[in-house]
This record gives sequence, C-alpha cells and structure tokens, in this order.
Amino acid sequence: MARETFSPLPLITTKRDGGTLAADEIRALVDAYTRGDVPDYQMSAFLMAAFLRGMDAREASALTESMLYSGTVLDLRDLPGIKVDKHSTGGVGDKVSLVLAPLVAACGVPVPMISGRGLGHTGGTLDKLEAIPGFRTDLDIDAYRQQLADLGVVMIGQTAEIAPADRKLYALRDVTGTVEFIPFIAASIMSKKLAEGIDALVLDVKVGQGAFMKEEADARALAEALVGIGEQFGKKTVAWMTSMDAPLGYGIGNWPETAEAIRCLRGADVPDLMAVTYQLAGEMIWLGGEADSPEAGVEKAQAAIASGAAFEKFVALAEAQGGDPAALHDPDAREGAAPVAAVTAPDDAHGYVAGLDAFQLGRAAVTLGAGRLRKEDGVDPTAGFTLHKKPGDPIAPGDLLAEIHTRKQGEILTFQQAVQAAYRYSEARPEVPPLLRARYTEGQWENAP
Amino acid sequence: MARETFSPLPLITTKRDGGTLAADEIRALVDAYTRGDVPDYQMSAFLMAAFLRGMDAREASALTESMLYSGTVLDLRDLPGIKVDKHSTGGVGDKVSLVLAPLVAACGVPVPMISGRGLGHTGGTLDKLEAIPGFRTDLDIDAYRQQLADLGVVMIGQTAEIAPADRKLYALRDVTGTVEFIPFIAASIMSKKLAEGIDALVLDVKVGQGAFMKEEADARALAEALVGIGEQFGKKTVAWMTSMDAPLGYGIGNWPETAEAIRCLRGADVPDLMAVTYQLAGEMIWLGGEADSPEAGVEKAQAAIASGAAFEKFVALAEAQGGDPAALHDPDAREGAAPVAAVTAPDDAHGYVAGLDAFQLGRAAVTLGAGRLRKEDGVDPTAGFTLHKKPGDPIAPGDLLAEIHTRKQGEILTFQQAVQAAYRYSEARPEVPPLLRARYTEGQWENAP
Repeated sequence: MARETFSPLPLITTKRDGGTLAADEIRALVDAYTRGDVPDYQMSAFLMAAFLRGMDAREASALTESMLYSGTVLDLRDLPGIKVDKHSTGGVGDKVSLVLAPLVAACGVPVPMISGRGLGHTGGTLDKLEAIPGFRTDLDIDAYRQQLADLGVVMIGQTAEIAPADRKLYALRDVTGTVEFIPFIAASIMSKKLAEGIDALVLDVKVGQGAFMKEEADARALAEALVGIGEQFGKKTVAWMTSMDAPLGYGIGNWPETAEAIRCLRGADVPDLMAVTYQLAGEMIWLGGEADSPEAGVEKAQAAIASGAAFEKFVALAEAQGGDPAALHDPDAREGAAPVAAVTAPDDAHGYVAGLDAFQLGRAAVTLGAGRLRKEDGVDPTAGFTLHKKPGDPIAPGDLLAEIHTRKQGEILTFQQAVQAAYRYSEARPEVPPLLRARYTEGQWENAP
Repeated sequence: MARETFSPLPLITTKRDGGTLAADEIRALVDAYTRGDVPDYQMSAFLMAAFLRGMDAREASALTESMLYSGTVLDLRDLPGIKVDKHSTGGVGDKVSLVLAPLVAACGVPVPMISGRGLGHTGGTLDKLEAIPGFRTDLDIDAYRQQLADLGVVMIGQTAEIAPADRKLYALRDVTGTVEFIPFIAASIMSKKLAEGIDALVLDVKVGQGAFMKEEADARALAEALVGIGEQFGKKTVAWMTSMDAPLGYGIGNWPETAEAIRCLRGADVPDLMAVTYQLAGEMIWLGGEADSPEAGVEKAQAAIASGAAFEKFVALAEAQGGDPAALHDPDAREGAAPVAAVTAPDDAHGYVAGLDAFQLGRAAVTLGAGRLRKEDGVDPTAGFTLHKKPGDPIAPGDLLAEIHTRKQGEILTFQQAVQAAYRYSEARPEVPPLLRARYTEGQWENAP
C-alpha cells in the first residue's frame, strides 16, 4: 500500500515545530494527498500547522508547483503572440474582465482567460458572461485553444483537468478554518493561472471593506506572494493594489454588470471602472509586447475603445461562444433587465455621499438572487442593483440612490433597507481614497502617480 | 442530520486565533466527535490549533470531563474504604505497580487499578501481570467490583466502556503529530483514572532520558496539569517527580520485571525500586486514611513487606485472577526464565558505571520481543534483560554487565552490542542524581528531603 511507503507524519511535525520543508517534501505530500494516499485528517493537521507556523516563499512556490502539476498544464507555445491574462482577488461590481479581455485582444495581445464563479459576497466572471442569453463557458480544452488561435480571446470556466489538487485542498481548507492564509491563497490562485499556458499575468489585488483583504498590509503581502510565485515560474507578473471600499461602477449583479461592461466597451465613461480597466489593459498590452510602456498601453487601449474595435472583439467573442448578439446591442431590452423598485435617499441625507459599503451591497445582491449562498446554488442572471449615487456625489433627501432588479417581489422592502444602510452621508465633500493605490513587480512597490 | 446542528468550524477558528473555549463548547465538540458527527479532518485541525495555541487549565478540565463521561464512570461508593490508585507516566524497568498495589491493599487501602499495555520503549503493567502463567487481566466490571470488595485489590486492563472518546482521540493524535501536548496527555490519563471510581490518586511523573518527558520543566508542567485536573474533580491528588535516566531496578522485560517484583514483595532490597515504591505506598496509605502522614504510611508499608502480608496479598490477587502460584513461589523456575547470553564490560571499562541509558535499553528490550513495535503485536513474556551493574557501581573489564533473555538466538550479538552501548563509565565515582526529586499537591512543590 502506498500509504506505507510515504508517511506524512514527519512533515506534519516539522511544520508544527516551526521548521521549513524542502520543495520535494511538499511535492510528495501534495501528490500523495491528491492520489488519496494521505487521508484528509493528516492533511488538515498539516494545513493548520502551516497556517499557524507560516510558509516561506520557496514553500509557497513548491505548493503551487505541486497543485499546478496535479492536472493538465496547457502549452500554448505553438500559438503566436505573448499570452497574457488578468486575475482579480474579487470585489463587488468588479466587471473589469468583461471589458478588459476583448479590449486587450483588440490591441493584438492574446488573452486566454479561465475564470471562476461567484462565491461569498463577490460575483464571478462566468456568471456574468452566462447572463448573456446562450453564452457558453464550458468549452473544452481543444475548443479553447482553437478560439484563442482564431479570435485572440477566449473566456471559459475551470475544467476538471486543471489543478485537481487545488480543488481537493480548497474543499478541505473550507471546513477546517485554513482558508485565510496568504501562501495557500496565493498558491491556489497561481496554480490555476499558470495552468492556462500564459506567458505573463496582471493581478488586481483588492483592498478594503468589500475585498477579502480588509487591510492594506495583508493586500500587500498577498500581492508580493502572488508576484513572487509568478516570477519563480519565469512569468512576468505585475500586481496592482486597488481600492474596494465602494463597488466598482454602478451595476451589481450579473446582467447589471454585463450591461455596464457592454456600455463601457461602446464608449460610456464610468470613471472608477475604466480607470482600473485602462491601467490593467495598459500593463497587459505592454507585457504582451504591443506597447513600449504601460502608459503607451493605456493610450492604445483608449484608442481601441474609441474606435469600436474592443466592442467588435467582444461581439465576436460572445458569438463564438454562443451568445445572443441582440442582448449586446441593446442591453436594456434583455428580458428581466428592468428594475422593479427604486431606493431613495432618506430625510437626513444632506451634503454628499461619504461612503457606500461594498460588502453589505455584495451580500444584499446575493440575497436578491445574484449570487450563491452555497456552491451548488444557481443564480438569477438579471438580479442585482443599479446604483445612481456613488461616494463623492452630492445628495439631497428623495434623490434616487439605486434601483433594484429581482424576482423576489415579497422582499423588496428588505432590499431597500439594505441599500439605504450601505450609504453614509457627510455635510462636507468627502475625501475619496485613491482607487489605484500601488503597483508591484520584480520586488519593488511603486505608488500610483 | 446532527452535523448540521453543530458546526465545529467556529471553535476551530477561535482556537486557531488564540482564543479560549468555554467548557460547554469543548464538551459539545468532543461529544459530537465521539458520536461521529464531527469528522476526523475537522478534529485534527482543532487538535493542531490547540497544540500550537495552547489550552488553559479550565479547558484541560473540560476536555477531561468530556472524555470521562463519554463512557462508563464506575461508582464504588458502596464499597468501604477510601479507594486510591497510582499512575506512572512510564519508564524502563518500572515494575512499581506490581509491588505497590498488593502492598497498599495489605495496609488496608483498597486499590482498584486499571492499567495499560506497553507501547514505545516502555513496558506495560498488563503485559507484566500476564507473564504470570494463567493471569487474566480482562475481568469485566462486575468481577472487578467483586474482587475489590473481597480482596481490596484488583488489576485489570482498560475495558471498551471506559473513556471511548479518549481512545478515538488518541488514535487521531497518534497520526497527526498532536501527541506530545501536556493538556492532551493530562486529560487522557486523568479521564481514564477518574473513570475507575477512585477517591484519591498518586502520580509518578518520570523525568529523564528514559521518560517521555526528558526535561524537568516539562515534567513539572505535566505534574501540575495532572494534579490540577484531579483536584478540579474533587480528588486528593499527589504527584512525585522521579528520575528515569537509568532503568528502575535490575529487570527489564515482562517476566524479568515480574520476577523482580515478586522478590521485592518477599523482602529483597532493590534500593531504587523500593525507594520509589515505599514513597508512593506511603502517600497512598496516607491518602487512604490508614496513616497520619505519608512518612507514617512508608513505615506501615515497610512493615507489611517484612511481615509477608504484602506478598500474601499478591498471591491472593494472582490466584483470584487465574495466575499459577508456582511461578510466584519460585520465579526462576518459570519456563523460559533463564538467560541465554551474558554481556561483559569491555576492556576500557574502568572505575565506575557513570550512566546507563534507559531509553536505549527500553528500545533494545522491545526488539528482543518484550514490547510492541505496533499496537497489534504480541509480546514474548520472558524476553528482556537482567542487569548486573547500575550507575555508581564499580566496574572492571570482563565484569558481568547484564544477561539477555530472548528467543531470537540469531540476534544475540546485536543485543549484546546494544547493552554495551547503553553503559557509560568514569574513573571517578559519579554523582547519581536523586531519584525522588519533588512532590506536588494543592498548588505547592516540595523538594524531596
């Protein structure tokens, strides 16, 4: 029996006592666990020991590598171009990927994007794409490769072949109190991204009350861990730390967000959303060799929106994956897209919107039907909010704060109260914290200009 | 499903983050685990978190209580007398219980003793008793109670009804690197002892290279934890910290130890063994109300050896449990008792025996057949060593160091080498550290006189 040839106990006790494991020890442990030769109860003891004793950068890389090679690692080297993807650690109203992927592809950089579903208070790119009637995200690996070759962009969900060890480990972490540990989080993200066959990666590490990392120190540590792993694998990796206190843009929920992304691809200016999108696009275009600097990449991206090339790429992408083009050309006409109720500012709302709690709104959107309380739940594609006021906006009693999209007519009062509770007001114009906080690559932090 | 009504995750994360659990939280966790409603992988994450974050005295008591009430708790209040037991944390050559239990009973204090088997490098009282041909340690609870009433002493093995939670938890600790943690060790010992129906308890906490606690600080902490738990349960509890650097007495292995215990019950003076035995007996006789002080208890115990009452009690005990009295009256005549090889001092052995490594000898005895490499192994009842030199003894090349009892004739050279490797010599007479180091009860340490 294989269990007799590999005993995880010495590795558990080494980590328990504060020691460092060699890369091949971590590989042996993860391999044996994935094969089923190490039982869950030993792995969970190891996870807790690592959580409390820490893992260094080399251990985190070895963990990533073990999870990466537990499944299929795509090789896209036979396709032309430098393949670049983006990953966000998750926020509320974060529809950046929907604008970004076709935009960057329109600038000549291939974007092979494998995304996840919404879980917790944040949405998922797959759910947003699937809000386009007919859009399929379950392409197999051959179709993925073919579409990337044909169109320069493809957006699918994680397949069972990719990083099965990560899936098995995440399920165990979820029930053993070992999720919120930066080396595990970084290894989980990077093992999946590296399996895509990318050459370079841009990371959007969110920080604030609507993000998983509430504190800047934690977000910085996560960015450093992610970039460190990417660079150890020989991939150019750039991380931006961006604010996630208020939601990004005005739409929250799958179709409200997709519709907003479509409007932006067609030239609408949503300042916070497009500031993040252009910055990340500029990095990707630069990493992809289609601009001499991130700044030049930003200019190229702005031109691709203005020319309509980005929207055209999105339409081609959606059609290639089965999406109904009618929904793209007139987002408001989509069945179920109309709001069913409004939320207005209360009598004591004077001066300005001082804050808007992304976490509360994200949770309210899940309750509306836009997200999942449990992994196996379905989502209502059109449920969500359309915001009309954001932090910094002037406000007066009775002003329209937001509209509600839901099928749960009986709970509208609760949703209205949830939206009102998320807004804070101030007499004086508030200081809105900078959105693009700092950039990290090759061991250096650089503050946003 | 019960798993839906009790989630261990909040308790795991509280402990992970350094918090303290309430007694009823620990009870709920252990109860649910014992019922099978908390899976091993969550319990092992909790065990590791507790191991690394610590548990306070109240948590250790709650853990003990949960394990204690997971099974049968004997009630011996209808039997006359103050019932007193002894527990040793385990050493090499530690046959104290075999002399002590009949000795204390002969002095009028009932001794209901439930013991374990040998594991690791130390022997177990059950294996030693079973080296007496015919001796049965698997009495049921009714027979246990009846014999205690009739004879004032009974020595059996742990039954399945006693502390099943401890058995289940120990099996998990054993494979998850969470054995060596004082609150777990103390709760495991005390839950089983408290289940016996005792009124008071004497503990022999071993310290030294042949003990599980190598360092005095650890042994002190364990003694304090054990006594603290006993006292929380309203039982008078006294701990003695005793040295376990060299083996206790001259016999190592089951029959070699039982034979030595018989000789001591018949009046032979083995100084280190009897020093510990008399001290613990004095405490038990005092706790049992048959002497006004531990010192007076020691005198009473010495008299019971001298009068033959202690040996008589042992014979009655052995006969009541099926043992062959012939083996008690002539230990050397037992089949297989004769040594098969001798070990002599090497040419460079001059001066004195400076040290004798109990841990090495204990492991060598296991290899000889006296102990178990795995729980399910059987033991050879007559395998072991008879020592002829102990630390402090003068030595010269060619002196007889020890004799070997084994059926593994082909490995005698290896065993001889193991014995020789355990001896250290010095020209000058060595300082032999005190055997009885310190006594702990009611929150106070007192050094041995």
